[in-house]
Amino acid sequence: MLKQTKRLTLVEQVAEQIESLIASGAWAVGTRIPPEPELMEQLQVSRNTLREAIRALTHAGLLKTRQGDGTYVCSSSALGPILKKRILRSNWLETLAVRHALEREAAHLAAERRDKEDLERMAHCLKQSKQAIQTEDAHAYARWDLEFHQTIVSSSRNGLLIELYDYISDSLPPILVEMFNQVDFLSFYHNHALLLEAITDQNSTKAAALVQQYIHETQEHFQNEDITGGLNPHGTDQ
Amino acid sequence: MLKQTKRLTLVEQVAEQIESLIASGAWAVGTRIPPEPELMEQLQVSRNTLREAIRALTHAGLLKTRQGDGTYVCSSSALGPILKKRILRSNWLETLAVRHALEREAAHLAAERRDKEDLERMAHCLKQSKQAIQTEDAHAYARWDLEFHQTIVSSSRNGLLIELYDYISDSLPPILVEMFNQVDFLSFYHNHALLLEAITDQNSTKAAALVQQYIHETQEHFQNEDITGGLNPHGTDQ
Repeated sequence: MLKQTKRLTLVEQVAEQIESLIASGAWAVGTRIPPEPELMEQLQVSRNTLREAIRALTHAGLLKTRQGDGTYVCSSSALGPILKKRILRSNWLETLAVRHALEREAAHLAAERRDKEDLERMAHCLKQSKQAIQTEDAHAYARWDLEFHQTIVSSSRNGLLIELYDYISDSLPPILVEMFNQVDFLSFYHNHALLLEAITDQNSTKAAALVQQYIHETQEHFQNEDITGGLNPHGTDQ
Repeated sequence: MLKQTKRLTLVEQVAEQIESLIASGAWAVGTRIPPEPELMEQLQVSRNTLREAIRALTHAGLLKTRQGDGTYVCSSSALGPILKKRILRSNWLETLAVRHALEREAAHLAAERRDKEDLERMAHCLKQSKQAIQTEDAHAYARWDLEFHQTIVSSSRNGLLIELYDYISDSLPPILVEMFNQVDFLSFYHNHALLLEAITDQNSTKAAALVQQYIHETQEHFQNEDITGGLNPHGTDQ
């Protein structure tokens, strides 16, 4: 599986090989990578070269070394950690605008491309989020609402859009929890039910218009309330 | 300007310090970084630590070492190189859909936020692109059309959107050159003239609708012609 490296820039080559093992899923997120001697043997490189490659990938956010426990895979691509870092420097309304742009395009594409399983998943998420509103469970609502949107985005079958959305929407749940007592989420629920209907009917124009509608309502809310003033939208995961 | 580092993970600290010098523009893209002995002295770190930090940033695409000539800054943030790498794995229609989503949102925001200078810049780009159509200069057209769209995006005043768009639209000019003899760019010109009018009038709904219109026309073109079949949309810059 691992290829021996032959050219000059050994560190770069080793880093790229490890990166593609991670990208392909051969080294899955959350698993420990093989021990140093094994990798040195397979790649035919010195300890220093290997360590330097691993440090480069650690800096890129793909690997994490735990003292005395080995090195773990912590992200499947370098884009995620970098984009999250970038989003920490961005203000919440900027991030929200980009997220909405992607959601609108995704709804349009999802209406054309969704299959039966996608629709069932969306319906399930919607049902759970309604139940969470009724039982006033903010955390459950935030979780199911995000999953509803992620299912629409994944139904777009656009890999780049899906990946960007996943990283950008990561900061969403804490905001939803914070908003829970200030917003009438039932009106969002009704919008989302119509959105699911439009996607089911393959009406992409209507689907995009319904996304536009909740974007508009969300923006009005933020302009009126400024609830993000004292809030860290990115949670504690820094 | 450089702070001495005191905690344990020296390599990471040094890398982060250098990263913020680059992000702030103190170390500008295209310039050579100070020589090793100077950096070792300022940061109070060993040669090995410094070299490892520099290698990590080289892997991230921020720095480039030229043999016998020193190390140069080649990107202002780690997001650009990573996103470009990701886009190479994406197909052209996927990239186009994401680009359009960002353009639509940008036109909406630009209509609200543009100033006099933005409008003048857009008008200038549009005039140049019309001239390029008339003189049948595909490269000039591609350049001015991209700059027209980038001016709209920068008028959105949304830093995250601007950065994502810049990296994603990088692959555009070769495609436009390729399309030049197959498409009626005068009809795009008329659309863009109306778009500039809507942005001038601060009519964000109309601006977004006009973007929607040329997106629709572009998609129809690609569906009918499949011109991207034998084309590498990312040029030779791999």
